[in-house]
Amino acid sequence: MFSVNQRTYRPSARPVAVICLDGSADEYLDCALARGFMPNLGRMSVEGWRGFARAAMPTFTNVNNSSIVTGTPPSVHGIGGNFFFDTASGEEVMMNSAKFLRVQTIFPHAQRAGRKVAVVTAKEKLRDIFADGLISEGGIAFSAEKAGQAVIETHGIGDVEALAGPTPAIYSGDASVYVLRAGVALLKAGRADFLYLSTTDYMQHKYAPEAPEVLKFYGELDAEIGKLLDAGAIVGVTADHGMNAKQLPDGSPKVIYLESELVEQFGPGFRVILPITDPYVAHHGALGSFAQVHLPPGMAAGGVRDWLLQRPGVTECHDRKTAARLMELPEDRMGDLVVASARDVVLGRTPEYHDLKALAGALRSHGGRYEEMVPLVFSEPLNAEYAARVLGDVRNFDVFEITCNGTH
Amino acid sequence: MFSVNQRTYRPSARPVAVICLDGSADEYLDCALARGFMPNLGRMSVEGWRGFARAAMPTFTNVNNSSIVTGTPPSVHGIGGNFFFDTASGEEVMMNSAKFLRVQTIFPHAQRAGRKVAVVTAKEKLRDIFADGLISEGGIAFSAEKAGQAVIETHGIGDVEALAGPTPAIYSGDASVYVLRAGVALLKAGRADFLYLSTTDYMQHKYAPEAPEVLKFYGELDAEIGKLLDAGAIVGVTADHGMNAKQLPDGSPKVIYLESELVEQFGPGFRVILPITDPYVAHHGALGSFAQVHLPPGMAAGGVRDWLLQRPGVTECHDRKTAARLMELPEDRMGDLVVASARDVVLGRTPEYHDLKALAGALRSHGGRYEEMVPLVFSEPLNAEYAARVLGDVRNFDVFEITCNGTH
Repeated sequence: MFSVNQRTYRPSARPVAVICLDGSADEYLDCALARGFMPNLGRMSVEGWRGFARAAMPTFTNVNNSSIVTGTPPSVHGIGGNFFFDTASGEEVMMNSAKFLRVQTIFPHAQRAGRKVAVVTAKEKLRDIFADGLISEGGIAFSAEKAGQAVIETHGIGDVEALAGPTPAIYSGDASVYVLRAGVALLKAGRADFLYLSTTDYMQHKYAPEAPEVLKFYGELDAEIGKLLDAGAIVGVTADHGMNAKQLPDGSPKVIYLESELVEQFGPGFRVILPITDPYVAHHGALGSFAQVHLPPGMAAGGVRDWLLQRPGVTECHDRKTAARLMELPEDRMGDLVVASARDVVLGRTPEYHDLKALAGALRSHGGRYEEMVPLVFSEPLNAEYAARVLGDVRNFDVFEITCNGTH
Repeated sequence: MFSVNQRTYRPSARPVAVICLDGSADEYLDCALARGFMPNLGRMSVEGWRGFARAAMPTFTNVNNSSIVTGTPPSVHGIGGNFFFDTASGEEVMMNSAKFLRVQTIFPHAQRAGRKVAVVTAKEKLRDIFADGLISEGGIAFSAEKAGQAVIETHGIGDVEALAGPTPAIYSGDASVYVLRAGVALLKAGRADFLYLSTTDYMQHKYAPEAPEVLKFYGELDAEIGKLLDAGAIVGVTADHGMNAKQLPDGSPKVIYLESELVEQFGPGFRVILPITDPYVAHHGALGSFAQVHLPPGMAAGGVRDWLLQRPGVTECHDRKTAARLMELPEDRMGDLVVASARDVVLGRTPEYHDLKALAGALRSHGGRYEEMVPLVFSEPLNAEYAARVLGDVRNFDVFEITCNGTH
């Protein structure tokens, strides 16, 4: 038993494995299940529970992984995007580091409570956040992307490739399958009994749910889930965000260039921050359905908000304080206005800013409300307390608490 | 081929059956499919297409059925709720009648184009809207609720009970199964080849998706869908809205009494309209996640809106003009402000106004954004044009167009 960030966790003595299937809109599971590609997830949903949980806004990877590993919304953990504009320094700041995390993750606490914790992520960008305080306690944290570079001193493990195979390419489905395969190997080797396995959404950005490539991918993930179940683990599965096509009928991106339009309407001095932006832009071109807008000095927010709310494709626009409440965001890392766009619309800065050639085909992306509802699946029946809990406004970042406390 | 409301329909010579499964949040299908209760829908989703569509706001039955049968949003067809407050007359006006519909339905046009149209609804309240202009053209429209009272002159049919069995109780699952059974009978008897079958959500208000009662219910619906498929019909399935639990852990309703709170904060003179209200309140107590607010004369909307946006449980609040754009509502049948509430929260007027004893247990309801995404399923593969269309912001009220044009 251990307590972190006002939650108490009482995990079973059995192994516990929580999986975040990055970008897994529910349709991906539906399509794979209907075609027989996910027999293990299908069994979990019947013998345990399957439903929807609400993700944290904005529906991005760092935001939601930070929520899942801390059990808190972004207003508490501080990471409201992949980066933010620091008005004090005048700099755009990446938040790929644990130093931006304002609370501890559950992992060092679980390790101190006697669990053997291992955290595996596909992308190196999340490793620093996940590893925070864990390695010195004796835990393990590494990425598939840099599996071969993991060493005992900094990762708690030095033989990842011997355990799970050669380091995969990051722009591949195998980068994600590798994460689960490594989890299975750690569990079977007795080197971990409390796992967090977090994949990457390269495949979901690239393929619609019926695509044979993505069906095969989910089949491979399901096979690894089956091995976790066979090894006796209690498994909880969720996603960080959904995924929707954001394109015109001809396949070109359906973009509102927000900074261009604001400058045209109100004059210069706007800075639009797209917190989806990170070093891995090939699959989304830094285009998502969420933006922070910094206004020119002295400009009132109300008029700009009201104008944006009449712009087709914009579905939400709030001033900082309202957005901080409605989306549980950290006020000191926000713009003056927050904008979200429609199911099929992304927000950009200016046409020049985005390299659409890098997209190589369709644009599927996320960040707004239409990627907010994500799957939540448990391998065991829920007890009365948590069966009632999942009926309500259950969150994807409740997944550790429910996997630990709700299944026995 | 026929054209209505700026859409052209080119149905196959095969029978066409569009089904609206009232209150079918996607979880109902997931639970029933995973447990083998819906083999026919499962086959449709593999051989045809299954995904999500966006319903019209507010996510109520009359609003969305009116959208489905006209192919238009509420801003065009005029029915933005079960009733509205007419500021000119000072009266609250029910909209259970075709006289409030501002456009024609597709049905008389399909009938004139040579189709044998039959429209079957569970609740009598929708029959007048569905029958508009259809009976005089030779079509059929009746409700399960008053099946035994249908006569040729006003319903286009006089022997419903002989065809489909005795009139079911309206507060039952059988009221919905009866709708589909009647559709099968009409199709097999050669009396209809263009069907709209619209069920009622009594079971979904009453039971969570895993409940044995609702699984059996979906199994019965699926068996009728199978008979439509066996009879050669092209089948399209959608829902008018989803359904969520709106209650506290002890099972009591999680209500914001909006009129009471506004009066307490700003003084008397507010009128809160709950457009879920209809003569059938036993299963929701007139509590949904959407309200129209009429302000006291002369009061500015902005301050009230900003106050409501800070109220926990409120997820959206817009002035009339903004709500009309964001939710495609008819401006002349709206309040000064529109309010939507969270996944697990309903809006009420005052504690005295609602008879919660009538709820008889859990409160599951709808009306807001968290009931906006609904299933959309077709029995046939989609052609290229419509396969691209469903990738984007497809609507539940595209269902007739796609069933007619997208499947051949």
